[in-house]
This record gives sequence, C-alpha cells and structure tokens, in this order.
Amino acid sequence: MPRWSRERARELDTNDPLAALHDRFALADGLVYLAGNSLGALGRAVPDAVARVVAEEWGRELVAGWSGCGWMEAPARVGDKIAPLIGAEPGEVLVCDTTSVALAKLLGAALAARPGRRVILSSTDNFPSDLYAAAAVAQRAGAELRVVDRSELGAALGPDVAVCCLTQVDYRTAALFDVASVTAAAHDVGALSLWDLCHSAGVVPVGCRENGIDLAVGCGYKYLNGGPGAPSFLYVRRELHEELENPIPGWLGHDFPFDFDPAWRPASGIRRFLTSTPSVVAVAALEAALSVFEGVSIEDLRAKSVSLGQLFIETIEDLAPSLEVASPLDPCQRGSQVSLRHDEASELVTSAASKGIVGDHRPPDIARFGFSPLYLSYEEVFRAAETLAAVAASLVSSPQPSSP
Amino acid sequence: MPRWSRERARELDTNDPLAALHDRFALADGLVYLAGNSLGALGRAVPDAVARVVAEEWGRELVAGWSGCGWMEAPARVGDKIAPLIGAEPGEVLVCDTTSVALAKLLGAALAARPGRRVILSSTDNFPSDLYAAAAVAQRAGAELRVVDRSELGAALGPDVAVCCLTQVDYRTAALFDVASVTAAAHDVGALSLWDLCHSAGVVPVGCRENGIDLAVGCGYKYLNGGPGAPSFLYVRRELHEELENPIPGWLGHDFPFDFDPAWRPASGIRRFLTSTPSVVAVAALEAALSVFEGVSIEDLRAKSVSLGQLFIETIEDLAPSLEVASPLDPCQRGSQVSLRHDEASELVTSAASKGIVGDHRPPDIARFGFSPLYLSYEEVFRAAETLAAVAASLVSSPQPSSP
Repeated sequence: MPRWSRERARELDTNDPLAALHDRFALADGLVYLAGNSLGALGRAVPDAVARVVAEEWGRELVAGWSGCGWMEAPARVGDKIAPLIGAEPGEVLVCDTTSVALAKLLGAALAARPGRRVILSSTDNFPSDLYAAAAVAQRAGAELRVVDRSELGAALGPDVAVCCLTQVDYRTAALFDVASVTAAAHDVGALSLWDLCHSAGVVPVGCRENGIDLAVGCGYKYLNGGPGAPSFLYVRRELHEELENPIPGWLGHDFPFDFDPAWRPASGIRRFLTSTPSVVAVAALEAALSVFEGVSIEDLRAKSVSLGQLFIETIEDLAPSLEVASPLDPCQRGSQVSLRHDEASELVTSAASKGIVGDHRPPDIARFGFSPLYLSYEEVFRAAETLAAVAASLVSSPQPSSP
Repeated sequence: MPRWSRERARELDTNDPLAALHDRFALADGLVYLAGNSLGALGRAVPDAVARVVAEEWGRELVAGWSGCGWMEAPARVGDKIAPLIGAEPGEVLVCDTTSVALAKLLGAALAARPGRRVILSSTDNFPSDLYAAAAVAQRAGAELRVVDRSELGAALGPDVAVCCLTQVDYRTAALFDVASVTAAAHDVGALSLWDLCHSAGVVPVGCRENGIDLAVGCGYKYLNGGPGAPSFLYVRRELHEELENPIPGWLGHDFPFDFDPAWRPASGIRRFLTSTPSVVAVAALEAALSVFEGVSIEDLRAKSVSLGQLFIETIEDLAPSLEVASPLDPCQRGSQVSLRHDEASELVTSAASKGIVGDHRPPDIARFGFSPLYLSYEEVFRAAETLAAVAASLVSSPQPSSP
C-alpha cells in the first residue's frame, strides 16, 4: 500500500509554516514547477521592482542614479541579503559577475595567495563549467588542476594543494558533500577551500562561517529566483579580505571609484573583489526576489525541502518501480533535488511537462526534479510523483540498469 | 557677435534627418541631457521589452525559455546589432560580462597567443580601470604592462609587444586616437591591437574590419543606451577566432552547452569567448535600446555629433570666456563629447543641473558634456551652452590655467 496519499500530503500543507509563500510567486494554476534547481520561478514582487528601476530610477534620475538610487552599494547590499542563507556575515558576500567569472577570480586569488602550492584540487563529478574555468586558471598560473574521484579527495590533499574547489550539491544527483569535514581536511594541509554553492543557496545550509569556509561562489537564478542569467554571488571569509588580491581589478572595487586614480588601490573589505558594474536592473530583480526570504530561516527551508524530497521518493518507489532514484536516499546526503534514472529520461520529462509537471533532463539518462520550499506544496509534489509514475508506466521501453 | 542663435540652431533641427528619434526617448520636458557619455537615456521601447521578458518569458516559459525564447542566442544576436556601429561583421561581436572582465579575457587571450612577447603596451591617459585590469593580467602572466605617454607609443612599439591596448576616445577630453595608423603600427611590429570603444560605440566610426582591428571591448550603457551596468560587448576579428583561447571558459561558450561535457571544447566562431550566462533581462534592455539604431548609419550619427559639438564649442567660446575648452577643437580629433576646464567644475555641473542642463564632473577640474545624436536637438545644445555661460559668469573665482 502506498505510503502517501493526497490527503496525507494535504495534512502537511495545513501545518506548513512556509505555505503562505506560495502566493508570492507568479506560477500558473495547475503547474507544478520542479525545475527551480535550474531556473527559479518569478516572484510577484519582481516585475514592479524591475519596472520601477527602469522607469523611475534610470529613466528619471539618469546619471544621478549612481549616487542617488543606491546603485553603487547594490552589489554589497544584495550580498548582505544572501549572507544569512549561506551562513556568512554581513560584509562577506558580493553580487557581481557570473558564477564562472567569480570562480575564476577567486581561484586566481587563491593561487596567488599560496605561491608555494601549485595545485587546484577538484572532483571528477564537479560541474563541468567549474572544471573548464579551473583548468584555464591553473594553466595560466603555471599550476595544475588535479581532478580525482570524490572518494580519493582525502588522499589527494597534500602540501602542494593551494585550493580545494568543489561543488556542495552535485547537479546531476544532488549528492551532498560533507562541507565541514572536507573543509577541515583542506585546512589540515594548509589549503584554502572554495565551494560552489549554485545548488545550495536558499535550500541547503552551508555554514560558511561555522565551517571556516574560505571562498564560495553561487548562482542567483536557481533557488534564489533572481531570473535567467541573474548575477552570481561570491563569498570571501572576512579574515582573507586583506590577504587576497582581485585578479581582475576594476573601477568599482577601487577604494575611491570616482577618483579615477591611475593606480589600483583596492577598497577595504569585500568590495575589493568587485570588478565593474553589474547590471543595475538585473541586481534589482535579484534583490526583489530575495525579499521572499525575509524572516525565513534556512533551517526551515531545509526541513521542508527534505520532507518534499522524501514524499517524492517514497511515492516514486511505491508507484513507479520502473523509475530508479539516482539521488541518495538518505536525506542527509542529498540536496534539494531528486534525480530519476531512466533510459527514456528525455521523453519522461517532455511527457510530464505536457501534463503540467516541469522538471528537466540531463544527458544521458537523468531526469531532475528540484524542490523549492518557497513555492511548492506537498500536494503538488505528490501529484507530480503520481503523474511521473503514470508517464513511466506508459513508456514502452524497460528500465535501464544504472551505469556503474 | 555670437556665431550661433536659437534661430540658427532651430534651422539645423528642421533639416536634421535624425530629429524624429528624439521622441523615442523618455526624457523629461525641458531637460537637456548631456551625460549620455556616462549613462545613456532610457529609450521608450525599453520598459515594455523588459517587462515582457520578465513577465511573459521568465514568468510563463520558465526554464523552457532557454530554448524557446532565444535566450541562448542573445549574446551573439545582440552582438550582431552592435557590429555595424563599430564596422564589424556579423559573428564578430558578443554581448557578455562587463567591460573590465571582457578586457581581461581578451588581454589574457592575446598574451597567450603571442608567447614570445611579454608586453602589454598602453598609454598613461587610458581609462584607469583598463590599466588596473591590464596590470593584473600582465602580472599573472609573467608579463609587463608598459604605460607610456601617447606621443611615445610609436617608440615603445617593439618586437616584445604582444598587444597594444588603448581607448579610442579619451574619457576626460574626448581626444581621439587615429585608430588606423596606431593599429597599423602595432601590426608592423607583429603586435595585436585591442581598442576600448566605450566612448566610441554608437557615435564615432571605428572601422574594426577596415582598420584590421584585432580585438575590442566596449560599454553597453553609454551611447548604446542599454541601462546602468548594461552588459558590455567584445569584438574578435574573425581570422583570430580559432587562434585565440578564452582564458575564462564556461559552459555557454562550449560547442554543446547542454552536453555538460567534462572537457572544454570551444564553440566555433565568436561564441567560444562567452563564459557564462549574462542576465537575460539586462541583455533584453540593451537589445530594445539598440532598436533605435535600426536604419541609422554611423556616418549620419557622427555627422550630427560633430555638428552638435561645434555648435557647443563655438557658443561657449563666444559667450563664456571663463570656460576653457579642454577637448580638441578640431572635430576630427574629438569624440562625441566636449570637456570644459574650470577650477570650480564641480559647482559648474551642479548649478547647471539645477537648471536642467545635465553633464558630469571628473576630478579635478573637468566638466564633461556628451552629445548623443539620437536624442539631442541643436536648439537644446545651444540652450545648454547659453546656460553654462550664464552659470560660469555667476561663479566667483577666475578661470584656472590648464595643467600641462
């Protein structure tokens, strides 16, 4: 007998302290949006905020907006709104650039700060784009990108490692790294730790300060709902601000940006890691999106995310034997996403989408479903699992055994 | 007797083929906006375009927008709209990143492509932010940033120069480099040429192809009117696409972005210089802003820009003897801006702004006035010069001789 029913899901909705947040998103009736791990949904506050910045700030204040509308302070101001979601303190987070550019900047800074160490260490299952950037940074610096299976990270951490660069939540399976122990292991050999938080920020506690994380980057457009291509964020532990140098210095990170000093003089604090002006409109969209998080703790978000994931997994297990759960079954080992493996994963996702259940596909055989605790109800997630089970049953081919 | 009168200015307006474009901008009545060299004005097409992307594309299409709404193609599509303004061909321009990041990428690529040459050559009067980025790129690459007076560039160009990195239009004085001769001189010694077109794009012909320019970057938010912090653009001459490597590779520049290939395989053509996803909303604002340029030639824009500048200079000369023109008087030597030197430049700008004449101030003693031929009439520029003359007359202190 299935463990979950619509009624049982509804009971959880009744008692969900985050349930009211659902209405702060502009999602169509009947749509169950499980691709927030790829692109977050549009918050209702965003269109007006964007329109106001365009028409009133840019349109009316024009060039005076730089000083009069808080545009200069926006990267740090919005960073401060992300900080509590990743366990950082005010003044440790900036919104700027894209994730890959931010990653390249921090990796370059890390290598320069550890001149005797010539290795960036990463894992084979890291996000490919991170590996591209890391390889290029290493090559330019005369260093080496060492990529190992995650099970071999401990052995690969040696005195030659400048920085250990990993992604907390695997984008395919949502497998979680133990940030505390890996960071501690990196520190034990004198290496810096850099975490990609793209699939963490807003749903998984990171504990930047608590775990002594040195550096981090993350995406503004997944669970933070900042819109397609939203600016990324970067985190630098306060104690490193003076030690690390921004490898792409620019006027906005200068101590006195409007002096147009021919010599670079970095601002004090996190602002030195700015390069140039991020889109004021894009930052405003992200800032408005973040307003939904006010008064919401990351612990409550995580608790609901875990519950949604358990409901989904148990319902799939009970109703859809042809679908293999590719994500860790232990919620302590899993981010806010459940991936299903199926040899027709692409068809599964397409067919489910036609029934209002939106996930996404990652080649070759993964269907991904992300659970934003801000805008998903338990009943919706139950309905999604029911629908996926029906779609899977209708697919002709038999399930594929998992690849090793 | 003054050379200009309101009537004479109005005559030019009557015969101005670009006059109708004025109404495509949302500028307040009575405002004469001469700071478009810093932040361009808001085009009337922009708010609706932005609102549509936010509410209809992001809000309704959600993750399907990447494939369904042309977001993936936007960097190259919008680049193609900038191309004719700088004399480039389709497929040679991308919209992405910020100007400083784009500059750092292209300088890094240039140094790597000329391994036997270890010098980035620039001029002391280059935009400071360009010098910060260039110095950092040089240092990381074990190279040298050589900064010389612009009069000494010829002598400094030697076989050790990998890339000559200059800004076509000086941000303080609008002094123009002779792009053709400097580019040819760089080529004569085997160096690449990189031009910063921040104050050129949309107002000054560049002739990227005609002059054999190798690399260029530029700003989306000055004369292109893309909004505060709009994405920048980069240009790479087609013949160099295969030779140069993107020093910050990212998923969007991969040959098959959605394959999530662990190995970097650059896309063919200009797309390989992409790193990661620029803000779709910000790119949409820039794209809408560029619609004003459709059917308008850069030659016509330049002709009107020169005429506006001459009217302004001659009126200042005739009415305001205390204001020294700090820009070249020969229009062939000047971009689309006229700078005035005054020891109370800041007060001059502030007081003029209170009378609806908006320019800006650059320390210590420069007041800058930019002339966008899209939204300025001759009568407005005449009124601006009249007002500045009256303000200058009211300022107590005497004019300051120019510094050497």
